[in-house]
Amino acid sequence: MPKKNLFYAQSGGVTAVINATAAAVIETARQYKRQIGKVYAGRDGIIGALTEDLIDTSREPAASIKALKHTPGGAFGSCRYKLRDIAQDSTQYERLIDVFRAHDIGYFLYNGGNDSADTSLKISLIAEKLGYPLICVGIPKTVDNDLPVTDCCPGFGSVAKYVATSVKEAGFDVDSMARTSTRVFVLEVMGRHAGWIALYGGMAGGADVILLPEIPFNMNKVAEAIKQRDAQGRHSTLVVVAEGAHWETGEIVTKEKVGSKGEDRLGGIGDRVAVAIQELTGKETRACTLGHLQRGGAPTALDRILGLRFGVKAVELIADGKFGQMVSYQQYHVGSVPIEDAVMKLRLVTPDSEIVAAARGVGVCFGD
Amino acid sequence: MPKKNLFYAQSGGVTAVINATAAAVIETARQYKRQIGKVYAGRDGIIGALTEDLIDTSREPAASIKALKHTPGGAFGSCRYKLRDIAQDSTQYERLIDVFRAHDIGYFLYNGGNDSADTSLKISLIAEKLGYPLICVGIPKTVDNDLPVTDCCPGFGSVAKYVATSVKEAGFDVDSMARTSTRVFVLEVMGRHAGWIALYGGMAGGADVILLPEIPFNMNKVAEAIKQRDAQGRHSTLVVVAEGAHWETGEIVTKEKVGSKGEDRLGGIGDRVAVAIQELTGKETRACTLGHLQRGGAPTALDRILGLRFGVKAVELIADGKFGQMVSYQQYHVGSVPIEDAVMKLRLVTPDSEIVAAARGVGVCFGD
Repeated sequence: MPKKNLFYAQSGGVTAVINATAAAVIETARQYKRQIGKVYAGRDGIIGALTEDLIDTSREPAASIKALKHTPGGAFGSCRYKLRDIAQDSTQYERLIDVFRAHDIGYFLYNGGNDSADTSLKISLIAEKLGYPLICVGIPKTVDNDLPVTDCCPGFGSVAKYVATSVKEAGFDVDSMARTSTRVFVLEVMGRHAGWIALYGGMAGGADVILLPEIPFNMNKVAEAIKQRDAQGRHSTLVVVAEGAHWETGEIVTKEKVGSKGEDRLGGIGDRVAVAIQELTGKETRACTLGHLQRGGAPTALDRILGLRFGVKAVELIADGKFGQMVSYQQYHVGSVPIEDAVMKLRLVTPDSEIVAAARGVGVCFGD
Repeated sequence: MPKKNLFYAQSGGVTAVINATAAAVIETARQYKRQIGKVYAGRDGIIGALTEDLIDTSREPAASIKALKHTPGGAFGSCRYKLRDIAQDSTQYERLIDVFRAHDIGYFLYNGGNDSADTSLKISLIAEKLGYPLICVGIPKTVDNDLPVTDCCPGFGSVAKYVATSVKEAGFDVDSMARTSTRVFVLEVMGRHAGWIALYGGMAGGADVILLPEIPFNMNKVAEAIKQRDAQGRHSTLVVVAEGAHWETGEIVTKEKVGSKGEDRLGGIGDRVAVAIQELTGKETRACTLGHLQRGGAPTALDRILGLRFGVKAVELIADGKFGQMVSYQQYHVGSVPIEDAVMKLRLVTPDSEIVAAARGVGVCFGD
């Protein structure tokens, strides 16, 4: 196998441990000197490849790379940028291959969620078509935890912990004042069309009501549960709402997206649920949309380690010449699966699953 | 001095360390066995006295009281409840004295903010008028930090730390994505008519724009600052807005208060500022109203110690027979001042003060 350079890029919303993965990629690549030359990082993700804005990490001393493991945010910048449909316009893909050729890049590591897996797959196909040898490996990273072929993704646990802590902390405050002030506190959290963050964060934090995209809710049932709690002397109620949750009869709430192209921006359901609760119960209700905050907290140890392991595994796949793979985590083992198994599918909460039953068992109301 | 029982109540929004004060009150009172009998805590604050719902803390073992020092929330419940105007209706005050008499209560400790100091003062006056000997001591506690006779209040530092951490954490996340996603993040924080939380939390967290009640802002100047940052290659901007901040031309934004009587509920300015920024700059802007979350975090060591010292000092004032005092903290010394010095005045940020100048010095824009 001829020695080639490696291109690494981050994609989508970053996580608390995405830089741990970056550090592991760079450190591990340095150990495969016979196969891997330089590691280039794309500035602002794949945009860095399209604009030929590459960060040569070989210039960074080992101490800086080590420090990345504990650096929050996305060290090289990330982006939410979807390549154009390859069937209609393949110029962007060809541009990527041109840049890769110019920098003698033979390995492409894409660190992101579902869309990134899809992009990796398309790039590997076009490279093959253009006769340019390129090993593409996907490294999962999504707080939404909605990738189908891995038990969990680095970043999810940290967001769940942040949400759980927030529910618990807000709960102490709200409960202390529930006789004369706020009675119901609504926390809107991320997850897009998957309810994992709301379910895990809410359940771990002791939320009383959890509204998920997978279980459409009936507002009257939510209000009834709050009134029943009140009748039993529990004057405050904590509600966690996934941004993709929706009424039985309603649609997903989105906000106008300005200054950027891309998917609809979910958000706003928390405020709407709060207004509805206040109207139906007469109880003072406040809402908070956590937004960016929830991705910014200190990571869990498991997440940090998972982030590191995923980075190491990705480089090992390259060294082994494994094409078109995505790193995965199944039954406590870090391995890999074909990228095509991961794309265009979502792993969602199953309404009749054990975890949902367990949540009901500890008194969680899903409004269904 | 005949031995009397002590009544302790928490009032208003709780802080991360209000229970530390409660623990110190109870522990210190147990050391003054000759003067102080039982310590009764009011359930849900002063409402507990009006309804004769008193918690007899003498039944609690020492270990439980010690554990209070690290217990979040308000252990006995707090309330936002203003007694009726004494000039028009003194029956509530008389009711309090009746309950105090029935339980042989000679000491009244009220742990709260400005309103609580005012209530303590009124109760001490009516007790005197009714010939009922009652030593009233106020123990400050307000995250707003707006009491005039103390350098700071237990609870403020912890909220400032929470806000600073949130600004920093959200900042890492927003900055990582600023090329294709959110450019401006607006965080609305507490403080009522005082800007201390926004100023300290924002400045410590590295906010670029801080909007305070004391410095009315011009939205065009805020938008101009964001555009200038962009022109200099700084694509993301972090804005901290105090809930009581307002346009040069505008009024304070409030929300309808439901299910509870009392003052207007501040809030909503963050969302309005975000919409205005998006309109004026075309940049994707997101807002978060922290609300209850900011009062719930782990306290600073200084706050916890201050909370404890305030509780000890309050009981010492009682043991010394000092009437009508409020505990204060001035020049690193915990002492006391007459309650009347603390009431009906607010300590606000002075626009031409050294701290505001320092914030401007490190590049903060106040929109003025």
